[in-house]
Amino acid sequence: MSIRADTWVRPYKKLLLFLFRRENMAQPQNDTLTEGLHRTTVRVRFGDTDPYGIVYFVSYFRYCHRAIEEYLRACGLKPEETFKNVREGFGLPIVEAWCRFRRPAQYGELLRIETRVQEIRSKALIFRFEFYPETGRELVAEGTANLVAIGPDWRVRELPARIKETLTGKK
Amino acid sequence: MSIRADTWVRPYKKLLLFLFRRENMAQPQNDTLTEGLHRTTVRVRFGDTDPYGIVYFVSYFRYCHRAIEEYLRACGLKPEETFKNVREGFGLPIVEAWCRFRRPAQYGELLRIETRVQEIRSKALIFRFEFYPETGRELVAEGTANLVAIGPDWRVRELPARIKETLTGKK
Amino acid sequence: MSIRADTWVRPYKKLLLFLFRRENMAQPQNDTLTEGLHRTTVRVRFGDTDPYGIVYFVSYFRYCHRAIEEYLRACGLKPEETFKNVREGFGLPIVEAWCRFRRPAQYGELLRIETRVQEIRSKALIFRFEFYPETGRELVAEGTANLVAIGPDWRVRELPARIKETLTGKK
Amino acid sequence: MSIRADTWVRPYKKLLLFLFRRENMAQPQNDTLTEGLHRTTVRVRFGDTDPYGIVYFVSYFRYCHRAIEEYLRACGLKPEETFKNVREGFGLPIVEAWCRFRRPAQYGELLRIETRVQEIRSKALIFRFEFYPETGRELVAEGTANLVAIGPDWRVRELPARIKETLTGKK
Repeated sequence: MSIRADTWVRPYKKLLLFLFRRENMAQPQNDTLTEGLHRTTVRVRFGDTDPYGIVYFVSYFRYCHRAIEEYLRACGLKPEETFKNVREGFGLPIVEAWCRFRRPAQYGELLRIETRVQEIRSKALIFRFEFYPETGRELVAEGTANLVAIGPDWRVRELPARIKETLTGKK
Repeated sequence: MSIRADTWVRPYKKLLLFLFRRENMAQPQNDTLTEGLHRTTVRVRFGDTDPYGIVYFVSYFRYCHRAIEEYLRACGLKPEETFKNVREGFGLPIVEAWCRFRRPAQYGELLRIETRVQEIRSKALIFRFEFYPETGRELVAEGTANLVAIGPDWRVRELPARIKETLTGKK
Repeated sequence: MSIRADTWVRPYKKLLLFLFRRENMAQPQNDTLTEGLHRTTVRVRFGDTDPYGIVYFVSYFRYCHRAIEEYLRACGLKPEETFKNVREGFGLPIVEAWCRFRRPAQYGELLRIETRVQEIRSKALIFRFEFYPETGRELVAEGTANLVAIGPDWRVRELPARIKETLTGKK
Repeated sequence: MSIRADTWVRPYKKLLLFLFRRENMAQPQNDTLTEGLHRTTVRVRFGDTDPYGIVYFVSYFRYCHRAIEEYLRACGLKPEETFKNVREGFGLPIVEAWCRFRRPAQYGELLRIETRVQEIRSKALIFRFEFYPETGRELVAEGTANLVAIGPDWRVRELPARIKETLTGKK
């Protein structure tokens, strides 16, 4: 969105600033996908921690899946028709996942997840995740998730063209 | 927010409409607390369902806790200092919870949670939840959660005045 | 199991005691269903607590479902064919759940769940749960879960005769 | 346990067989740690799957943590005093985790987890997991979890001697 602060804006500057500020407040909750980098935020919830209040490592993998869902949605791909699609005869299960946890995050924190499609192969797909504090550049955690295209018989097959093209276009 | 469409607005109507529309698009993700009614949304995630793709009843209780967190946050109360506050010597554990599940919701759906403080007693607090489809008025689920104030010895005590006043003011 | 300590046992008393003891060691992990009362145990796991190390109230509902699964299994009913059975055209969703949390339990604790079928109606079923410390009679938590029989159209129907008879027989 | 079927056993063969069989029935629930290989079982629960009834990849990481807990317990180390021990001034957070998912497992299945300590370094520890069907040798999933010893200041430190010796002894 680009609105030049033209002379005609001046008398309504206060009103416009008010509207902008409201928008910016909403921004952290709005996902963005720019030049292949998707940003979303996740709040550390009450049940996401270990008994000591630190995010349980398992929760990061849940957050990763959520980041994939939002990445797909930002590309116009409905997750509920992408991970499994009976009509089109394919599935996209996660076949490998990895995370490194660099700094502890705590209950109540807001984490920013930066997601990229690291690699698109003929039959597979690798997502890469980085977790940061809402504002800040110290890496909290990083990881990858590998997805493979399978057919109704659970055998590996080519990525559906529609999926491949959409993701390649956004990468 | 109330901005009267006064005569002075007319020349910039298009710009204002654009800004408003953007705001409204963001709205579903923005929580609101008006006249004691708090609205938030929750997306049904991949791990939230039963093996048949229907929201697992347990997930609703997780969503309820999340709704309480957002209710508190909308009141200016940080959840991480409200459920347990060592400095001020109190805790607010959930001592009872109930939900009725009226209609199935599925993976990928966006649910609107409407939360009210149903009752404020001297030592306890009852939240009431209603779940609806993002747009629609058919009740998906409803429930309550009872919280009790306890001291460092785990004995029931008066609700901290600060908490009580804040919640009473918003009710 | 009743084995009289007859005279013929005497020479092998030590061996038998050894075998019995091993059995008793295993016992806490073995579920029992006697006169309608089912006993199982559940260990509080790392991800089951709130940020303060106390069992998160949501986890109790997960434990309740697990208790139903084990109750059914002890009756000879496979859970994976009982909560939803496409071939026999029925489902048994949980339509209401309630729990009261009386005493905090902590990470690492072993809880004993005592489960009963509280009520069998023509179209519904109510399970009742009580949670105790592994050894001890102080109630940690209690709750109920209501299940309703539905057909493939999601409409309420009679409980499948097979299920009703099996559960009535064990009650 | 080894009991030779000596001649003296013959008259009580039936009784002994009965006792053995009961034991064997209990066996799958009993953890064993032999020559550094720990075996435990985990049941795929209602909330552990994706919307299509297949074990959600995140659940495997939960199962891995559970396997570590049971490994520690089998070594005489209480998990609740091992992952964090304020008195002894150390913590053992998981700093990296990886899993590969080879074959789908479904709701209701019983999985056998085989766990080994793959490596003990001066300041770190790597657990290795393999998941199999209860009876069968087809690998369902495999993974690793890296733990690092930290002090009260969250800095990396030597593994506590007590922990290191115990785990080295069992390896």
